[in-house]
Amino acid sequence: MTIEKIAIIGGAGELGFGLALRWAKAGEDVTIGSRDAAKAAEAAARVKAAVSHAKIAGLDNVQAAAAATVVVLAVPFSAQAGILKSIKPALKTAMLVDATVPLAATVGGRPTRMLGVWEGSAAQAAAGLVPGVAVVSAFHNLSAEMLHDLDMSLDCDILVCGDDAAAKERLSALVTLIPGLRPLDAGPLEMSRIVESMTALMISLNRRYKTHHSGIKITGLNA
Amino acid sequence: MTIEKIAIIGGAGELGFGLALRWAKAGEDVTIGSRDAAKAAEAAARVKAAVSHAKIAGLDNVQAAAAATVVVLAVPFSAQAGILKSIKPALKTAMLVDATVPLAATVGGRPTRMLGVWEGSAAQAAAGLVPGVAVVSAFHNLSAEMLHDLDMSLDCDILVCGDDAAAKERLSALVTLIPGLRPLDAGPLEMSRIVESMTALMISLNRRYKTHHSGIKITGLNA
Repeated sequence: MTIEKIAIIGGAGELGFGLALRWAKAGEDVTIGSRDAAKAAEAAARVKAAVSHAKIAGLDNVQAAAAATVVVLAVPFSAQAGILKSIKPALKTAMLVDATVPLAATVGGRPTRMLGVWEGSAAQAAAGLVPGVAVVSAFHNLSAEMLHDLDMSLDCDILVCGDDAAAKERLSALVTLIPGLRPLDAGPLEMSRIVESMTALMISLNRRYKTHHSGIKITGLNA
Repeated sequence: MTIEKIAIIGGAGELGFGLALRWAKAGEDVTIGSRDAAKAAEAAARVKAAVSHAKIAGLDNVQAAAAATVVVLAVPFSAQAGILKSIKPALKTAMLVDATVPLAATVGGRPTRMLGVWEGSAAQAAAGLVPGVAVVSAFHNLSAEMLHDLDMSLDCDILVCGDDAAAKERLSALVTLIPGLRPLDAGPLEMSRIVESMTALMISLNRRYKTHHSGIKITGLNA
């Protein structure tokens, strides 16, 4: 089944590669984007090696974004604005899924602390850079390490923030394709301030409980 | 079993009353504090009516705090500093558990938005007001409505933040007395910035999923 044409910008990185792997396994058409096309191709080959039926390609970021209906931005916060500006002309009708977390570690601080972002959150900063594009944020609180291990079953809620209800539904359909992940509508894009910061909390919990696998589940919902 | 002498400042309020009820049911010695001693006595009578074996009393805030080993502050953010200053001379050797959430609703804003607190979080502001007192923060993400209904089984993690490991352990022991609650060490008191803001996220989720019962569980821990 292919419901979208997904480009993962930063798809050779930890989180991006994990999402590429899981969506490829689910039968989705995935293109890994990287600043370095050779690195993207190498990552695509690794997906293909793990998932023989994968519909996977590796291209430079701009080419990857140009062909996609859903563009997932999975890059370090320090690279977010620059990469977003570079792919902006290629976005056209695609929706953007921002997974950026402004951890203080990005500028040499602690991974359990956040940077202050003028717009309130990385997702809101992204939306400001691509006016007219539907932006949702998601995948902040997901263990990349667990995504990479296809034998590991996931058990995690994906908190989706955004101001465009249709875009949130399209992303939620993609989340549902990955077994063990449940998409939840966390509210407007401004709620990403909270959801992004929860990554620092997960890192704090991982450290204290000596794991890399912590995730969030919301209980008590009629979801 | 009585492991601490608990005072709940704001114990006639939603969250405070729920905690009083659950701890009284667990056999703990609980005193409800209120600015109005009559209101505290009335709330204590309601606990006694629901839990016949309850060791429960109602006093004004200062008297309640003076006799306690653990003082839980469960008041609106707008009342936090004033009440804390009033009970400060009574705290002596007790530890303080701050459950305050600086929701924008406190000053007429939205319940899904947070106020900026100069110290970073309500818990850090509390710690600044009572130097020398061991301060932990907890119970921000707990449904008061579920606490009130003793027939309802809870399923929620309590994220505990603090800089004093022994105080965190004492509170965690009290959390464990309430069936369905699991205490987790979320890190230093500064992490309360994130945990407090998650209350606004819970309110957003409650609204979208038409419930008052949402809670947080952390998956993937070796806890």
